[in-house]
Amino acid sequence: MAVFQHTLVFRTSGRGTYEITEQVREAVRTCGIRTGMVSLFCQHTSCSLVVMENADPSARRDLEAWLDRLVPEDVSWFEHTLEGPDDMPAHIKMALTRTCETLPFSNGSLLLGTWQGLFLWEHRSAPHARHLVVTIFGD
Amino acid sequence: MAVFQHTLVFRTSGRGTYEITEQVREAVRTCGIRTGMVSLFCQHTSCSLVVMENADPSARRDLEAWLDRLVPEDVSWFEHTLEGPDDMPAHIKMALTRTCETLPFSNGSLLLGTWQGLFLWEHRSAPHARHLVVTIFGD
Amino acid sequence: MAVFQHTLVFRTSGRGTYEITEQVREAVRTCGIRTGMVSLFCQHTSCSLVVMENADPSARRDLEAWLDRLVPEDVSWFEHTLEGPDDMPAHIKMALTRTCETLPFSNGSLLLGTWQGLFLWEHRSAPHARHLVVTIFGD
Repeated sequence: MAVFQHTLVFRTSGRGTYEITEQVREAVRTCGIRTGMVSLFCQHTSCSLVVMENADPSARRDLEAWLDRLVPEDVSWFEHTLEGPDDMPAHIKMALTRTCETLPFSNGSLLLGTWQGLFLWEHRSAPHARHLVVTIFGD
Repeated sequence: MAVFQHTLVFRTSGRGTYEITEQVREAVRTCGIRTGMVSLFCQHTSCSLVVMENADPSARRDLEAWLDRLVPEDVSWFEHTLEGPDDMPAHIKMALTRTCETLPFSNGSLLLGTWQGLFLWEHRSAPHARHLVVTIFGD
Repeated sequence: MAVFQHTLVFRTSGRGTYEITEQVREAVRTCGIRTGMVSLFCQHTSCSLVVMENADPSARRDLEAWLDRLVPEDVSWFEHTLEGPDDMPAHIKMALTRTCETLPFSNGSLLLGTWQGLFLWEHRSAPHARHLVVTIFGD
């Protein structure tokens, strides 16, 4: 077995989900490991990861809108508001989704279901550069 | 270290949690690896995984009922409704729980707590065949 | 590659988040593996793990208060109430956060973001001894 590790940077343009499946697929294809797992770790507490349907964009729009309503910005008792009204909701949305997501692969190909994609979920309103640590391990 | 990978198929009979601990235990027991991690990856976006109490079934009933109320089917503004009223809630429930769950094992035995079990959580109303990729790695 | 596994025990003093980053950092530093992943598995269904901001304590207070309101104790239809009003909410909060959390490391150092810490989240009101299985694998 071997382990391979590097960092990917993604530039977001504000709140929403950004598909990163192709970049992960490419990392797996070129690392020389045939069978194993690829783990993505999000080095931030105001964005997160989620595996979601990648066929019909309306599924992601509904997911994003639903979470926006569950965790609204106008919560009067929030203390942690220094960076603006989207600061604390971003942390909560992160905690409800995933900091680290791990995908299996075989013969150099991701073993995703037909409609699955991996998404970086930006929870802040402003654009950000987001760093994900990719760790690939296997045979 | 070695890596071992295969797919398990589970047939669900509609919404609810289905314990799969025994199948995972058997996969670990027979793979020849003694100490490491077993990772289950759910190849779908309308069912998910969760580690939950497996002693008293009322705990799972309450968990399922609570999530049904948090993510109801009758949301008027959902766009993604082609497959029925349980379609979009299933994606949301999946995003709030886990696509990939990883359990440690030692001497061929899962290191679960006394009351822990691993469950496949079907979020669709109709029966489905669900594919989980099992990846076991360790010494 | 090698795998290293042991159990850490933490004593909580009731509901709240407890930072465990230093203990994980120490486990990685002393295990002899340079590059890989460290996985923490929580052997309980009424506490959980979360990566959260560790700079400003108000962020954690708001996160905890928000989840307490999302999953209140006074739900009249809960069946699973034998251990008290905090029993079922604890299971639900666990299911919405993480049982297993995995962090990458390189050259013996955790690759956390500047403001990230790992927290054990106690969801029960009474103090508990909580067992986490640490599995470290890599080169």
